[in-house]
Amino acid sequence: MAFVYPHQIRFHETDGAGVIYFANVLTLCHEAYEASLAAVAIDLGQFFDPHGSRSGMAVPIVHADVDFFRPMRCGDRILIQLTPQRLKPSEFEIRYQIWPEPPSTRPSSVPEQALKQAETYAPRPLAQATTRHVCIAVGNSSEGSRRDRSRTPLSPDLDRWLQLWQR
Amino acid sequence: MAFVYPHQIRFHETDGAGVIYFANVLTLCHEAYEASLAAVAIDLGQFFDPHGSRSGMAVPIVHADVDFFRPMRCGDRILIQLTPQRLKPSEFEIRYQIWPEPPSTRPSSVPEQALKQAETYAPRPLAQATTRHVCIAVGNSSEGSRRDRSRTPLSPDLDRWLQLWQR
Amino acid sequence: MAFVYPHQIRFHETDGAGVIYFANVLTLCHEAYEASLAAVAIDLGQFFDPHGSRSGMAVPIVHADVDFFRPMRCGDRILIQLTPQRLKPSEFEIRYQIWPEPPSTRPSSVPEQALKQAETYAPRPLAQATTRHVCIAVGNSSEGSRRDRSRTPLSPDLDRWLQLWQR
Amino acid sequence: MAFVYPHQIRFHETDGAGVIYFANVLTLCHEAYEASLAAVAIDLGQFFDPHGSRSGMAVPIVHADVDFFRPMRCGDRILIQLTPQRLKPSEFEIRYQIWPEPPSTRPSSVPEQALKQAETYAPRPLAQATTRHVCIAVGNSSEGSRRDRSRTPLSPDLDRWLQLWQR
Repeated sequence: MAFVYPHQIRFHETDGAGVIYFANVLTLCHEAYEASLAAVAIDLGQFFDPHGSRSGMAVPIVHADVDFFRPMRCGDRILIQLTPQRLKPSEFEIRYQIWPEPPSTRPSSVPEQALKQAETYAPRPLAQATTRHVCIAVGNSSEGSRRDRSRTPLSPDLDRWLQLWQR
Repeated sequence: MAFVYPHQIRFHETDGAGVIYFANVLTLCHEAYEASLAAVAIDLGQFFDPHGSRSGMAVPIVHADVDFFRPMRCGDRILIQLTPQRLKPSEFEIRYQIWPEPPSTRPSSVPEQALKQAETYAPRPLAQATTRHVCIAVGNSSEGSRRDRSRTPLSPDLDRWLQLWQR
Repeated sequence: MAFVYPHQIRFHETDGAGVIYFANVLTLCHEAYEASLAAVAIDLGQFFDPHGSRSGMAVPIVHADVDFFRPMRCGDRILIQLTPQRLKPSEFEIRYQIWPEPPSTRPSSVPEQALKQAETYAPRPLAQATTRHVCIAVGNSSEGSRRDRSRTPLSPDLDRWLQLWQR
Repeated sequence: MAFVYPHQIRFHETDGAGVIYFANVLTLCHEAYEASLAAVAIDLGQFFDPHGSRSGMAVPIVHADVDFFRPMRCGDRILIQLTPQRLKPSEFEIRYQIWPEPPSTRPSSVPEQALKQAETYAPRPLAQATTRHVCIAVGNSSEGSRRDRSRTPLSPDLDRWLQLWQR
């Protein structure tokens, strides 16, 4: 199943044109990614630790792209649907579709039900995006983290996360 | 009663020191402010409209301050307690206290109950902040909005919001 | 010739991993775009006006992508090379290449000379990105700006900008 | 003498009201602080290192405040005047005044001359702000950096920086 992350567009996410600033759409996608990790009990502080000192692994983004179909304004409620997919043993991709939240769904529905209604309600998403991530081994020291960035297979935690949210 | 806004620190809110970037604490306070407005059914798109063309009013911030007591890291769950107070007919202040969310409170508790536990759990907040806002009349046209920025009393909506969340 | 925008990575642009937050690379590219417009005396306040009330035109981004080759850290000095290209009468694309600034170039060199040295100094860029933009006609009123978003050819100003910076 | 940092307001710094987002004014002040450190050859990557592993010291912000007098719009050129002041052996404060850049000063003037003209040109600043910083000793390891945050006097580098830019 896909992970669904509800969000209301915040004022600081908009720009002088009154709509969400383009690069902030990718930031919202990353927020959904973080929420999907937390949803399988991955410790975000450890996962995103600067030197991977506790996990021995870092998962930098090597590519991102985003297409904008309709503007999003301050206060708009959206649903971000996230679907990861493994590309290589050490690499995965996440696809995001952003939908307007149908007015009738709040607040009783769970995000997954709201998404079903959103797909019926709207002919196509407001935006879609992709991020591609590679797992690399990082040393324990601050110096080590800058060398030795060789690829390493996904950790068991990430593997579990990917199994759960991929379609 | 105070309004309570739960939040989990996001990766993009942190900086190279591994903790939340100082100015982002004020951004989180503004997010809590937006949520407190939405909670009394104020339309955020209209409230923050660039030219106040629909409401005839804008509410710019004229002052902000923030004190930092303890660092916040990526993934930390916090509670932002918000309390507005009227200073003049056209001016109000919001005070914010940011607390760590006690681990035991999730996910069953409502934010207000979690806050009570947080105040017992932690000796003092992680941070506290203030923002001061004035209501001004703005013209309907894009030109008008740049002149005629005279003070005007709080709208009935804002008055209702203030009555509800002030102690 | 290409436009070259020098920048030093700021602390708020980094994240808890000690490197620039991925979406901020696109934000820096947009800063370079703004600087390239200002360099041909385009008024940024008017160009990015919320309702296009003064120019009658808006130029939203419809697509962006970015590839990351090497991390950028706080304090790193970079050069963003920007090259626009027309795709249709109403649509253009900008390509960005981000290079490390060679230490020896500062501060005497002009950005264009520094770029030449950078291309010799580094085997490949730190990152590359693309943004795609369409010109649309927008009404004069706040209501009008939300309808009537039909495509329109590039303005003479944008045409001049494109002629100058395309290769 | 005071340090002067020129800046042109960027689109991503504005919000849906068409002016700079309030918390971003503090971010710009921090950019000026970083530039003032770089101007005395302090290595920013080392100074803001997550674990202070190379410098053994961190300088977190413990307080910030900001007053807004006039809005700043996309494309506006400003001058940020920065003046540090020592409060205790381990603590200093920075005051910032933000001025509109007089149109006639560009591009021949150095920032310090432009500031003189700005003070004549404008009756008062667009905004003013303060940040307060404390120096703390941090351990070499990632664990150590989270304990042992005892106050320590300013480093010789910071002392030199303070001597130079304080009035």
